[in-house]
This record gives sequence, C-alpha cells and structure tokens, in this order.
Amino acid sequence: AAILANSPLDKKDGILQLSSSYPKDVSIPKIVVETSTTPLRIRMEQFIRNLQESIVREIETIDGKKFLIDRWERTQGGGGVSCILQNGNVFEKAGVNVSIVHGDLPEPALQQMKSRQKDIDPSKGPFPFFALGISIVMHPHNPHVPTIHLNYRYFEIDSGSSKIWWFGGGSDLTPSYLYEEDAIHFHETLKDACDKHDLTYYPKFKKWCDDYFFLKHREESRGVGGIFFDDLDDKSEEEIFAFVKQCGLSFLPSYTPLIKRRMNAKFTENEKMWQQLRRGRYVEFNLIWDRGTKFGLQTPGARIESIFMSLPLTARWEYQHKPIENSREDELLKVLKHPRDWV
Amino acid sequence: AAILANSPLDKKDGILQLSSSYPKDVSIPKIVVETSTTPLRIRMEQFIRNLQESIVREIETIDGKKFLIDRWERTQGGGGVSCILQNGNVFEKAGVNVSIVHGDLPEPALQQMKSRQKDIDPSKGPFPFFALGISIVMHPHNPHVPTIHLNYRYFEIDSGSSKIWWFGGGSDLTPSYLYEEDAIHFHETLKDACDKHDLTYYPKFKKWCDDYFFLKHREESRGVGGIFFDDLDDKSEEEIFAFVKQCGLSFLPSYTPLIKRRMNAKFTENEKMWQQLRRGRYVEFNLIWDRGTKFGLQTPGARIESIFMSLPLTARWEYQHKPIENSREDELLKVLKHPRDWV
Repeated sequence: AAILANSPLDKKDGILQLSSSYPKDVSIPKIVVETSTTPLRIRMEQFIRNLQESIVREIETIDGKKFLIDRWERTQGGGGVSCILQNGNVFEKAGVNVSIVHGDLPEPALQQMKSRQKDIDPSKGPFPFFALGISIVMHPHNPHVPTIHLNYRYFEIDSGSSKIWWFGGGSDLTPSYLYEEDAIHFHETLKDACDKHDLTYYPKFKKWCDDYFFLKHREESRGVGGIFFDDLDDKSEEEIFAFVKQCGLSFLPSYTPLIKRRMNAKFTENEKMWQQLRRGRYVEFNLIWDRGTKFGLQTPGARIESIFMSLPLTARWEYQHKPIENSREDELLKVLKHPRDWV
Repeated sequence: AAILANSPLDKKDGILQLSSSYPKDVSIPKIVVETSTTPLRIRMEQFIRNLQESIVREIETIDGKKFLIDRWERTQGGGGVSCILQNGNVFEKAGVNVSIVHGDLPEPALQQMKSRQKDIDPSKGPFPFFALGISIVMHPHNPHVPTIHLNYRYFEIDSGSSKIWWFGGGSDLTPSYLYEEDAIHFHETLKDACDKHDLTYYPKFKKWCDDYFFLKHREESRGVGGIFFDDLDDKSEEEIFAFVKQCGLSFLPSYTPLIKRRMNAKFTENEKMWQQLRRGRYVEFNLIWDRGTKFGLQTPGARIESIFMSLPLTARWEYQHKPIENSREDELLKVLKHPRDWV
C-alpha cells in the first residue's frame, strides 16, 4: 500500500489493494469494498479512481497510444495516480489525475480558503484536512477538436469544533474554432446531468463557469464555458455526492462525440498557429488566475508535475496578433468576449 | 505630442518633440533639451529613450530585420514606445519598451508596494504617481545564444506629506546551455559598472538577483543571474541616477559579444526542444512570480501587449522531462539549483 503509506485510510479502513511494486504500465486496480457505512470520502475515492480508469481506457481506444501511469506519494500524507498521454495520435497531451491528500493545512493555504469558507479562522490553524479529486485536461493536436477540462473535488477540514466539508468542480470546453453544434452538445449533456438533481444548478453553474474562466487582463473568456461550482454544501453530503457522480460520468458522453467528429478534419498551418496562440491564453489563465493552481503551488509537498499537466505541450505568444475581421478566428474571439447561452 | 497628451510633462516642461502622426517605421526622435535644472524624471526619460534607440539600432544591425515601433497612450495618463522584432534572423522575439506613465495609484497597486516602501499607507490613497522605465527581453532562435532581460525604472509618489522616490532594476542572463565564459563576461561587465559607483553594489545586487529570479515551485533559478535591486534610495537621486545610467549603457557590451559568438553555432533538434522547455520555465516565472508583471496587470489601463512582450514566441511543457545525467542539459540544471559566483 505504498501510495497511501502513512495514511489513516490505510489503517482504519484497510481497503487499499495497491501493491508497493505497482508497475507503471498496467491497469489501475479497482477498489472493491463499499458498504453503506463506508465514509463518504472513501466512496468518493473509489468513484474517482474508477472514473479515472474508465476515461483512460476510452481515450486510449480513441488515440491508439497508451497513457503513462505514475503513482506518487506525498511525504506529508497521501498521494495520487497520474495518467498522462503525451504526443499521441489524437492528443498532444492528455492528463487524467487522481489525488488523495491529507495532512495539516498551513496558514497561507487557509488564507487562500478563507474568502470561500467563513467558518475558517486561519490564525487558529494549521488544521487537519483531507482533499481528494480528479482532474482532467486534454489538448488535442487537431485545432478543430476543442481542449477539455474537468475537475471534481471533495474537501474535509477539521477545524477543531466541527467538520467543514464541501464539493467543488466543473467541466468546460476551450475550442480554437467555434462549432456551435459542439458547444450545444457539450452544454446539453451537462445540463441533463444537473437537471436530474436540481433545476437551479445548470443556470447557476453555467454563469459561475463564465465568471470563473475569465482572463481579466484580456477581458475574454477562456472558452465556451460549461459548469463550475465551489464550496457546495447546501444539501446533504449524500445528495451532492450523487450529483457530482452524475457530472463525472457525463465526461465521456460530453466530449468523445466531439473528438470523433473532428479528429480527422484537415487543417492548415495557419489554423495550427492560431491554436498555439489560444494555448498561450490557456497558460495565462492557469498560471495567473486559476485558484486551483495557486493553491497547489502553496501546498507543501504538492506534485508540480501533476499540477502542470494542465499546461499544453506547446504554446505561442505573438506581439499584437489580431485576427482578420469576420474570419473564423475573429468569430471565436467574439464569443469569448460575449458568452452565449447554448441551450 | 500625442504620446503624452494630457501629461503634466507636456505643459510644464514642453520638451516632448514627438509629432502626433509619428510613423511606425522611422527613428525614435531624440529629446534634446537638458539643463542642470531639468527635473530628474525628465532626464531619466531622455536617458531611457536614447538608450532604447541605440539598442534598437544595434540589434537591427546584428539581426538584419527591423523592429516594429508602436507608440501607445494610456488614457489615465502617459504612454510609451514599444519596439518589437519578431521572427527575425537571429531573434525569435526581441522587445525594447519604454513607458512613462502617471496618474493616481489605486489601493490594490499601493498594497502591492507597501511591502517595499513602509512610508506608504494604502488606505490614505489613491496617490499621484509618476513611473518610467525601460524593459528589454530578447529571445534568440539559436539555443546556444542566451535570453537576456533588462529593466531600469524610476518611481515618484506624492504621498501628500512628501515625495517618495526610488530606482529599481537590473539585468540577468538565461541560457539554455551553459557557457561559463559567457556567464563570466556578462557578470564582469555588470560588476565593472557597479564598481564605478559603489564597491558594495555588485555583491549585494548579484545575490538579490539570484534570490529574485527564482522559481520557488521548481526550486531552481531562472538563469545564471546578473544584478537586481529595488527601492534604491540610499544615496542622492543624482548619485543613483548616475549609477543607473552606467548600468543601462552596459547592456550592449554585456550581451552583443555573446550573440556574435554563438548566433551561427549549429544546433540539433533536441537542443531546440530543450530550449523550448526552458522557455516554458521563463513563462512560469514571469506569470507566477514576477512582481513587475503582477503590478502591470493590476495597473488600470496598462498595456497587456507591452507587459507580455517578455514572453517567448514559443514554449513547451513536457510531463516529467528529465535530462540524461551529466548531459549538457543536466549541467545547466545543476547551475540553476546551485547559483555560482562568476567573478
């Protein structure tokens, strides 16, 4: 049980089946134990690990190249499994990461959280925490296939007097060229998942996504959006967990049709160049604005390689680049400046 | 005088010779008036604009391609001249920017400054400010020619009760491949400039540079260093201005011999790839850690294109890239992990 050696999980629940000599090129083993009394964080772990495996398998089938699977440990507690496909046939870089970390949350990280959870008093920390999540970013070669991002996460903090918990996450689409039918399909799939749990979720989380994935310094959105939420604790843990599972399971149906539709589309050198400029914007968002990245960089023992798997393989910055008016590149920019309702 | 229209400079001193129809492809006009009573900020403006012109001219001679010259205005006061050479023969991207801005410094920007200047009370702002500087970043095509960065700047803030002023700046070298003789030449040139003014400067500012251009999340330096200082106000304005002039004039002698020595060196595809990975690190530093960039992004009306001219044309991020032990790539990493004394 090397991955979560020194983990309370390891001892209390005894469900981790991983061998310490876990080879890099085999399946991710399934965690098979689940009972009604299993703590939610354990069932969340099981869910995200199974989701990781099913997504990795499906993307491997589409790409034809295998993911590289790395297990890593965090000396301060916990670890994760990073699955990366680099220089594939369809994907320039695709990452599907699971991380399950715990330990003491130091003051700078608590400070970062304070704006979100008023119950936390950073000066009384450090507090024990437990954080687990799945993160996906896929950058395709073909500029007509959009980049996708997904993240779902669960936090528990023991503030001494009470257990504070919340879910966060979402999924959003970043095309280099706008295909309205792709944006509509993506949003419809997410709306269906939301609507099964709460009719107010999709409109609320769609707007939250538009607000969050926004490059303030450029006054433009990162892409055509999706859903995003954070600090979600307005229902029971069980209800929100059921919603989060639904969202996670919507990943493949929301994205694989778009890959298959466009992966063999012809493209020009200029279209590839435009994609590279859009990749530059993706880097700007992640390094300047993304709270997850900032939080990761401040977490002692965080694994930089896993945090930065979200960065594209290649990116480009041109001085004063402006697309020709009414070109397809300009059409995308207009949507990024004025987010639309897609469903 | 479009560039500094609405500028107090324009009216009080009447020395700006720029025509409002300043074409993009001619010399940057010299400001010719200087008297012993000319305020220092005017003489600093004159100095940085002349320096900009002489550097642009010399780099054009080496590269064979002309810079694109853009004048820009800041609606809140001031403006600048950006000179960019993109896709040249020697340089992938080279920028030489001068900016001369003034106006009211809002609370977030004052907050950013507070850690540096204790005399500033952000809650009593906004305060009128005057900031001018020259910024240079040059990214060559050839992986054996190092990237260079230079910035010298002068700030004045009127805090109501007093005029607060300081100088900041420095210059540092970021090679993809280590050539000890290049690092030594660069540092010796800077040390000579420092030693003419204060023998304590070079050792102090060399260490400051190593500390500042450091990627905490990677635990590695951006390059082989140089000099860096900020909030310098420990002597008279005149004395520090003389020192800053010396530093600025050292740019060409510190860098052009390195360009000429390596610009025609043969390189392999693998060496180019390594350079691209190092460019990725450059982007990480600038977007995550650089205070100048953060400050720029928070300054209302800041010109994003000028701030981001420091970013390379292209960059690359590979998952888990590790150079072969004792290779030339590994040799560079060792120096970045353990900064050396070069003179």
